[in-house]
Amino acid sequence: MTSDTPLDARSSPRAVRLAARKGELTGPTSGLASGFVQVNLVILPEAEANGFLRFCQANPKPCPLIAVSEPGQRECSVLGADLDIARDVPAYRLYRHGKTSGTLESVANEWRDDLVTFALGCSFTFEHALVQAGLRVRHIDEQRNVPMFNTTIPLSSAGGFGGNLVVSMRPFLAADAIRAIQITTRFPQVHGSPVHLGDPALIGISDIHSPDYGDTVSVGDDELPVFWACGVTPQQVLMDAGVEFAITHSPGHMLVTDIPDSGLALF
Amino acid sequence: MTSDTPLDARSSPRAVRLAARKGELTGPTSGLASGFVQVNLVILPEAEANGFLRFCQANPKPCPLIAVSEPGQRECSVLGADLDIARDVPAYRLYRHGKTSGTLESVANEWRDDLVTFALGCSFTFEHALVQAGLRVRHIDEQRNVPMFNTTIPLSSAGGFGGNLVVSMRPFLAADAIRAIQITTRFPQVHGSPVHLGDPALIGISDIHSPDYGDTVSVGDDELPVFWACGVTPQQVLMDAGVEFAITHSPGHMLVTDIPDSGLALF
Repeated sequence: MTSDTPLDARSSPRAVRLAARKGELTGPTSGLASGFVQVNLVILPEAEANGFLRFCQANPKPCPLIAVSEPGQRECSVLGADLDIARDVPAYRLYRHGKTSGTLESVANEWRDDLVTFALGCSFTFEHALVQAGLRVRHIDEQRNVPMFNTTIPLSSAGGFGGNLVVSMRPFLAADAIRAIQITTRFPQVHGSPVHLGDPALIGISDIHSPDYGDTVSVGDDELPVFWACGVTPQQVLMDAGVEFAITHSPGHMLVTDIPDSGLALF
Repeated sequence: MTSDTPLDARSSPRAVRLAARKGELTGPTSGLASGFVQVNLVILPEAEANGFLRFCQANPKPCPLIAVSEPGQRECSVLGADLDIARDVPAYRLYRHGKTSGTLESVANEWRDDLVTFALGCSFTFEHALVQAGLRVRHIDEQRNVPMFNTTIPLSSAGGFGGNLVVSMRPFLAADAIRAIQITTRFPQVHGSPVHLGDPALIGISDIHSPDYGDTVSVGDDELPVFWACGVTPQQVLMDAGVEFAITHSPGHMLVTDIPDSGLALF
């Protein structure tokens, strides 16, 4: 794979990372290196990281940990060979005092010896498993972002962090909803089984067609909305806590790992 | 265990079978020999049995096969040691030309060399697993029979048999419904995962409080009715087909096997 070859579903995870590192890839990673796990990144100074790790442990559905680095570490062999946490994501987001302070193609200049990286599972992996099982995923069919909602489901407070769960929603016929529950149960490291299905009002969602993040999708009268814990939750929690300094991936611009999707299946 | 000891949850499966064999137990088996699989029995002449076996194979959710005997065979080591199919059930039902022709404590006098026995899984096993996981099962809490309904879900026709699925219903809060789907998925030989949840009208049920068999139970506004394939289905199918001769257990009067409930778990 040379830099002249355009990236696509058949690209290797390493080729995607190298393209991001060189600044040749600055767009979203959806559809690239199909079949390999893409992860959400949260990077925090060690002082906040210790509390955030306790928070993730207490809230595994929204914050499923795939890897946690040692302070200052930029490589991560669990995620992939020849991997640079500070440069291999196409776009990073910087936060200061709980607010976004810009998007960067590299955070090598911002790197500090006390930064701890959290790699969190992402729903791309379970959506891939749903599609492979023959299910149709509405927002993919309608070429939109998945609809996401704030809820009244409380998180377990830990390490100085807390708040309410953010969920993503995918509508299914009942039989497909049952199948989707079975399939996603196999993948606890990418949010696992749903947290709710049916009446949205029971978890504080007043209008299924007005998501708080992402896009609206159609929901049939004969369908059940099915709700999964969402990776937006930790980002919201970090902002609410007003953390002094944090780096995350920019939404949709993920770190592509060498882990095959099937490598995260429980059984 | 002697015949003087009253039967209860701690009785061995063999003690329950011997009590039935001696005519000391003629009542329902619910609650006896807790933790061991109880099975539905369908006994047919070989001519019909071959077609019925194809029907079961094509409809594993309502007709999950745990064992099938050779023609004429009254013992069945897969189900238990020292077991007599013709005498170890507390009450049998006889069918002639698709109609019930009476209840018997033994079918030893009716036994024929061409009779094939089908042992089918029963929801007692998965209900035990649900309760052990901390879920509340409504009809158990309300001390009623599980509500069962005819549906418009077509069965796969095979071997001269066909019709529509009969389902049992248990209401749960959404999070518990998700858990119940996970737990029952582990037990394909006792009906496995649900076939539907949510709107009863989508499977042809007009009133959730008017079951076709069993008793009505309360369903909360915040609950989803969850529907499983039901062992009444094969009995209904046999009657609809007008089979010349058949024997089944009498409802609630099951054959208690030596198989531990956990022995049927997939994982």
